[in-house]
Amino acid sequence: MKKDTKISNAVIKRLPRYRRYLKELQKKGVDKISSNEFSSLIGYTASQIRQDLNNFGGFGQQGYGYNVEGLYNEISAILGLDKEYKMIIVGAGNLGQAIANYTYYYKAGFVVCGIFDINPRLIGLKINDIEVMDYENIVEYVEENQINIGIICTTKDSAQEVADKLCFAGVSGLWNFAPVDLEVPDHVAIENVHLSDSLHSLAYHMNRNATENE
Amino acid sequence: MKKDTKISNAVIKRLPRYRRYLKELQKKGVDKISSNEFSSLIGYTASQIRQDLNNFGGFGQQGYGYNVEGLYNEISAILGLDKEYKMIIVGAGNLGQAIANYTYYYKAGFVVCGIFDINPRLIGLKINDIEVMDYENIVEYVEENQINIGIICTTKDSAQEVADKLCFAGVSGLWNFAPVDLEVPDHVAIENVHLSDSLHSLAYHMNRNATENE
Repeated sequence: MKKDTKISNAVIKRLPRYRRYLKELQKKGVDKISSNEFSSLIGYTASQIRQDLNNFGGFGQQGYGYNVEGLYNEISAILGLDKEYKMIIVGAGNLGQAIANYTYYYKAGFVVCGIFDINPRLIGLKINDIEVMDYENIVEYVEENQINIGIICTTKDSAQEVADKLCFAGVSGLWNFAPVDLEVPDHVAIENVHLSDSLHSLAYHMNRNATENE
Repeated sequence: MKKDTKISNAVIKRLPRYRRYLKELQKKGVDKISSNEFSSLIGYTASQIRQDLNNFGGFGQQGYGYNVEGLYNEISAILGLDKEYKMIIVGAGNLGQAIANYTYYYKAGFVVCGIFDINPRLIGLKINDIEVMDYENIVEYVEENQINIGIICTTKDSAQEVADKLCFAGVSGLWNFAPVDLEVPDHVAIENVHLSDSLHSLAYHMNRNATENE
C-alpha cells in the first residue's frame, strides 16, 4: 500500500463502491474478474477502472484480471477499514436514533459507544443498548474513551457549536447530518450527508425527465 | 427558465447548496450579493459561481451582483421545488421511521403519504400520523394516490424487487437508502444515499490526515 500517493477525491468516492461490488462477487464465489467484466457490472468504463486502481499500484495482472479477494482486502486497507472506530452520536432525535440502530456499522468496525443530548427527558434512555448521556459531559467522555468519530444529528443551528466542542475534545472525524456546512480544523476530516440536497437533486432529475418526454 | 439547456450533473449537485446559502442570506435580510462575497461564504471560486449560474441564463448584473431573493426563487424553480411531491416509504424499520419523522421535508413540498412494510406487527401502526400499510397493496396505492417518489428503506436484498414494483406502479423518482445500486427504467430518476460509502470515505480521509501528520 503506497501511502504517499495523492489521490483525487473523485477516486476516493468511487472506492467504497468498488468494495461493495467486490464483496458481492466474493459472496457469489467469484475469484477473479477482468476490468471488462467488472465494467459491465459496476457501470464505469474498463479504462476508468484500470486508471482508478492504478492509483494504488494496480492489482491486476495482464491476461488474468483482478483477484477479487485481494482487491477487496487492499481497498479495505486503503479506506482504513482494517481498524476499529469508536463513535458517538450527538442528538438523540429520530435521525440520531436511526443511526444508532443502523447496525450495519457495528459489523464493519464502526462502533457507536454513546449518544448525547441536552433534553433531560431523553438522558438515561437506552437506544439499542446505547445510553443517552448528558451533552454537558461530552468533552470528558470523548477524551476518556478516545472517541474517533462524532456523528452530528442536531439541528442546523446547534451543529457548528457541537462540531467545535467535538474537535476540541479530540475527535479526528465528523459525520455531519445537519443541513449546514461546518468549519473544522485541517486535521479533522468531515463528511456531510445532506439529505435535503439529495432530495432536491432527485426533484431536478424527475422534472428534467418529464420535460424530455413531453 | 431555459428548459432546453443540458447541464452537467456536477452543477446540479451544487444547486441545492447555493439555494441553502441564499436562504440563510434572506433570513439575515441580505438583498444582494456579489460573486466575490458569495465565494467567500460558500467556498467555491467566484468564477465557478458565475459559470454555474450562467448555465441558467445568468441572474447577476454587472456592478450590482445577484439579487438574493430572485436567485433563490430561480434555483428553486430549476430544481422543481415550486411543486409538491407525494412520497411513500417502503420499509418501516429504524431508517424508514427516521425519514418519516424528518419533518423538514413537509415544509419543503415533499409530503410522506404512507409507509409500507411486510411485517404484520408493524402494519397498522402510525408513525408521525402516517399509517404503516401492507406492502401487498402498494401498487394499487401508488396508482390511486398518484405517488411521485418511492423512498426505499429496505434491506439490500429486497431493494431491487421493491424498485421494480414502484416503477411498474408509476413513480417517477426513487430515493434509495439501501446499500445497493438499483436498475430503473430511463424515465425514472434515482438518487442514492449510500450511508456506508460516506462513512468509508470519512475513514479514508481520517487515515490520510493521520499519515500526513506523522
